[in-house]
Amino acid sequence: MGFKAVPFSKIKEEKVEGPEFKGVKVRWLITKEDGAENFAMRYFEIEPGGHSAYHSHAWEHETFILDGECLVKCGETEKRATPGYVIFIPPNTIHNFKNVGNKVLKFLCLVPYEE
Amino acid sequence: MGFKAVPFSKIKEEKVEGPEFKGVKVRWLITKEDGAENFAMRYFEIEPGGHSAYHSHAWEHETFILDGECLVKCGETEKRATPGYVIFIPPNTIHNFKNVGNKVLKFLCLVPYEE
Repeated sequence: MGFKAVPFSKIKEEKVEGPEFKGVKVRWLITKEDGAENFAMRYFEIEPGGHSAYHSHAWEHETFILDGECLVKCGETEKRATPGYVIFIPPNTIHNFKNVGNKVLKFLCLVPYEE
Repeated sequence: MGFKAVPFSKIKEEKVEGPEFKGVKVRWLITKEDGAENFAMRYFEIEPGGHSAYHSHAWEHETFILDGECLVKCGETEKRATPGYVIFIPPNTIHNFKNVGNKVLKFLCLVPYEE
């Protein structure tokens, strides 16, 4: 609870479990435990061929691609996203992220604590 | 208002004005205009020797260093932050970001819409 400045690699990595997740790992970089009451910063890695669940929920995503090549599906639309891409997934919209490149896909994905 | 996936470079760059800001530019990547009601994603560049204001406000910062070398001052503490550093600045804490390297400092800095 206070000022924090650490390399992301020092933060614990967890496997994302679930039947529709494949090869996805997450680090919760900034959370309520740090005193962040409004939104959380998360860092994801998806291995080549891996993907997140094609699902919908009541909260938005604010995403920034750091490395690799992503196919983002959102409702009826698909877009290819490379490093430097900014992605907004509105609330209640079915979506997923798929690694369509040859190297590990790395991105930040932030979510609110309150809808 | 809807799904958005664009390179950050397509988003308008603005100079940050103010007597205590030096060499700071910002792009508001995701905002309320996109339908993001809870928090905004911003991309900053600070030129070598440049810095943001040493100031305090009621909202937190969630920051991720993309490139360059940063000296972050927060209250009584100073930390050097390089690419991959995660920084949390709590609300109501005096802070600033200074480029102490030889190349352009690039980072994401997200802020809530409600405190």
